[in-house]
Amino acid sequence: MKQPFKTIHGSIVAPQGFLASGVFCDIKRLGTGKGSDQGQKRDLALIVSEVPAAVAGMFTTNQVQAAPIKVCLARLPQGAAQAIVINSGNANACTGRQGLNDAFAMTAFAASQLRLPAERVLVGSTGRIGVKLPMARVQAGIRQATQQLGHDIAHADDAAEAIRTSDSRSKQVAVEFQLDGKPVRIGGICKGAGMIQPGMSRNGARPAAVPGRAGSGIARLHATMLCFITTDAAIQPKALQAALQEAVAHSFNRITVDGDMSTNDTVLVLANGLAGNPQSAIRNPKSNGFRLFQPALDHVCLELARMIVRDGEGASRFVTVRVTGARSFADADAAARAVANSALVKTSWHGGDPNWGRIIDALGYSPARIVEEKVDIGYSTPGSRQICWSLRRGQPTHARFKTLCARVGQKEFDLHLRLNLGQACAILYAADLTEEYVDFNKGDVNDPASLGG
Amino acid sequence: MKQPFKTIHGSIVAPQGFLASGVFCDIKRLGTGKGSDQGQKRDLALIVSEVPAAVAGMFTTNQVQAAPIKVCLARLPQGAAQAIVINSGNANACTGRQGLNDAFAMTAFAASQLRLPAERVLVGSTGRIGVKLPMARVQAGIRQATQQLGHDIAHADDAAEAIRTSDSRSKQVAVEFQLDGKPVRIGGICKGAGMIQPGMSRNGARPAAVPGRAGSGIARLHATMLCFITTDAAIQPKALQAALQEAVAHSFNRITVDGDMSTNDTVLVLANGLAGNPQSAIRNPKSNGFRLFQPALDHVCLELARMIVRDGEGASRFVTVRVTGARSFADADAAARAVANSALVKTSWHGGDPNWGRIIDALGYSPARIVEEKVDIGYSTPGSRQICWSLRRGQPTHARFKTLCARVGQKEFDLHLRLNLGQACAILYAADLTEEYVDFNKGDVNDPASLGG
Repeated sequence: MKQPFKTIHGSIVAPQGFLASGVFCDIKRLGTGKGSDQGQKRDLALIVSEVPAAVAGMFTTNQVQAAPIKVCLARLPQGAAQAIVINSGNANACTGRQGLNDAFAMTAFAASQLRLPAERVLVGSTGRIGVKLPMARVQAGIRQATQQLGHDIAHADDAAEAIRTSDSRSKQVAVEFQLDGKPVRIGGICKGAGMIQPGMSRNGARPAAVPGRAGSGIARLHATMLCFITTDAAIQPKALQAALQEAVAHSFNRITVDGDMSTNDTVLVLANGLAGNPQSAIRNPKSNGFRLFQPALDHVCLELARMIVRDGEGASRFVTVRVTGARSFADADAAARAVANSALVKTSWHGGDPNWGRIIDALGYSPARIVEEKVDIGYSTPGSRQICWSLRRGQPTHARFKTLCARVGQKEFDLHLRLNLGQACAILYAADLTEEYVDFNKGDVNDPASLGG
Repeated sequence: MKQPFKTIHGSIVAPQGFLASGVFCDIKRLGTGKGSDQGQKRDLALIVSEVPAAVAGMFTTNQVQAAPIKVCLARLPQGAAQAIVINSGNANACTGRQGLNDAFAMTAFAASQLRLPAERVLVGSTGRIGVKLPMARVQAGIRQATQQLGHDIAHADDAAEAIRTSDSRSKQVAVEFQLDGKPVRIGGICKGAGMIQPGMSRNGARPAAVPGRAGSGIARLHATMLCFITTDAAIQPKALQAALQEAVAHSFNRITVDGDMSTNDTVLVLANGLAGNPQSAIRNPKSNGFRLFQPALDHVCLELARMIVRDGEGASRFVTVRVTGARSFADADAAARAVANSALVKTSWHGGDPNWGRIIDALGYSPARIVEEKVDIGYSTPGSRQICWSLRRGQPTHARFKTLCARVGQKEFDLHLRLNLGQACAILYAADLTEEYVDFNKGDVNDPASLGG
């Protein structure tokens, strides 16, 4: 089926009426004071809509939630926002009342610079946990970022760079589709490389697990992921929230780098309506425009989510774990996470070893119901329908070790796990575990700047 | 309080009437055929009692169970056994009907060599999953091991070596206590270094989680651990099983190296009664002798369990995670496992980094109920009562970074996690995550012998 949208060159400034900027204000106190033009990575971003926008969000279900999440949760019920201020280098998590005050102050200061009501500004942070924000620097950064706001892709590039932490590259995507003769665009940027296994919900509360229902699989995660999406679609906040929940359930909540869920995971969408489509066209999931909007938003979220896994800390492989034939979605999800977060499975991926023993072992200890004699394990090249099975009904096949190695030796491959017990399925996008991951995250206590969030 | 037992030099041959041996029969098909005296690690062990013994066991709750576990589960209800045959280099797991036949054949062949009924012989295996046992070699090994049986510590050393896989050293311990004027001894050997987070039960079935009850914390685990314990105590099988369950709940089920539960985890105890104590003295948990036997068995299991973690694959630190103040034992256990299995926490331990942010993050995404503003995190030297707190009630203390680094920089330290929500507590013995672990487990697909179980 032809996609009802096209990918375009662009980012968060592709939709009409959005501006962005990214500056360096030394939030990590590296102390050089030389600014980003001397090679320092930018660390403060602004995203602004020219007019008030409908807003929707998804937030970590970690019981420890960073201050900026509390601010967003307080403001989201208004349904409208116009700007987002984001810093990297400091998560503003576990910073107590002072941290919450600082997060509110960030929005108030940005609002004063942008001549907006403070309630119209949202905030995101990522970086080290438990350190107070250097507010003087943050304010200087916001002032500078306001001056540098622009519509060009270069401005979006600066913002995408500013929200990065351990990411090796910026992550951006944009799409366009036609609605009632009007071009509608969606753009997004995100960051995330470690402490990644998001499990986000609308209000940051843990949903009761609903067996068999996609999106209920909330799991353990950490190294913050942040994602900011802009669109010029005209859409009501309620419909926007419904679309975002659906998109996140099949993208950011389906990835794992290291199985650690962060205190700061956030996805925010601003929809400013400047595309001029009739708002009624995307009124609810049954309306015609929604059927065009949802797959476009799904694509933006899934592409960005996959970029996070591909850029996972130290990751050398991108594995799509496909569980089918489970008794329930909860089982399929649990089976996929047990395998994708097993240290032994992840290291075998790193070595290019098609070791099905470790995989069936992980399936066996997962909370999912499995029967050894029914399990099939196979590999395929992404996009190919040809699966090379290493295990059928619990028994090794005659597939050659070399043939299997050739599949698992690819930088990207699909792992098929058929439980043959029911109809439910789940997908999880996962990274391997490498020496580089350990080396990066062990840090150096003599160089506090090396110690991660 | 003075311990009611003393540690003695010895092993599984310390109790009266036990013989052991360990030989090399090239189960991994290394192909040298030169035997252990040419530097090849032994790979087949025998443990034999001169007289029939009471028997008890605990087995992995992984849904995928290796053939030797099925044989033991079939024979344990008899309550009596006289010999155990164990091989390393091959787990005989996921080997189907042939694997089960092979496991029974191992006991039958050992029985014929030892002139015992086959039902009196138990079996254990560890090594690569999914490979058929080379039965001709196994039989040759059993024949040789029978000839080499002996009472000396050197024979126990050979057996302890023969059950090792990736272990860097053998693991043995023995204790003695007095019961009605008779010396009673308990000795044990074990193996395990990776795929270690055992969760064992009496019958290999998953117990329903019983909140607040120690021992119900069955969790994800893998690299097989095997443990074989001998005692000359006169004790009925039922009382022996009760004592073993209690001992395992506080030792092997409280360790994690990499969070992977194996298909082969096994603990077996043989009690041959040759100490001559009145059997009625250890009749049930309320009897006088039981109160002496239980702590002695606890000590044997805990010492061996700790040896596994200290010898964890690539491990550079031994961390005792102590959770207190949880609402229930299930919560305390879940909190300890979330922290001790977090890739980010484990790498920070490796780096000697007292990073409480990653710890509170892991607590936050664990299934355990926690409240950020109530959490205390601290460190102590093992055995010391002086705790250096880095976090009190969710807020960083004034403890110096250098002071905290000095604690976490130790090869062994205790991590104290006080949730301040209730009365329940749990202990977990954990290893860090190092580059060596990844390097060892990624293996080399061009050298199949390097690919682990």
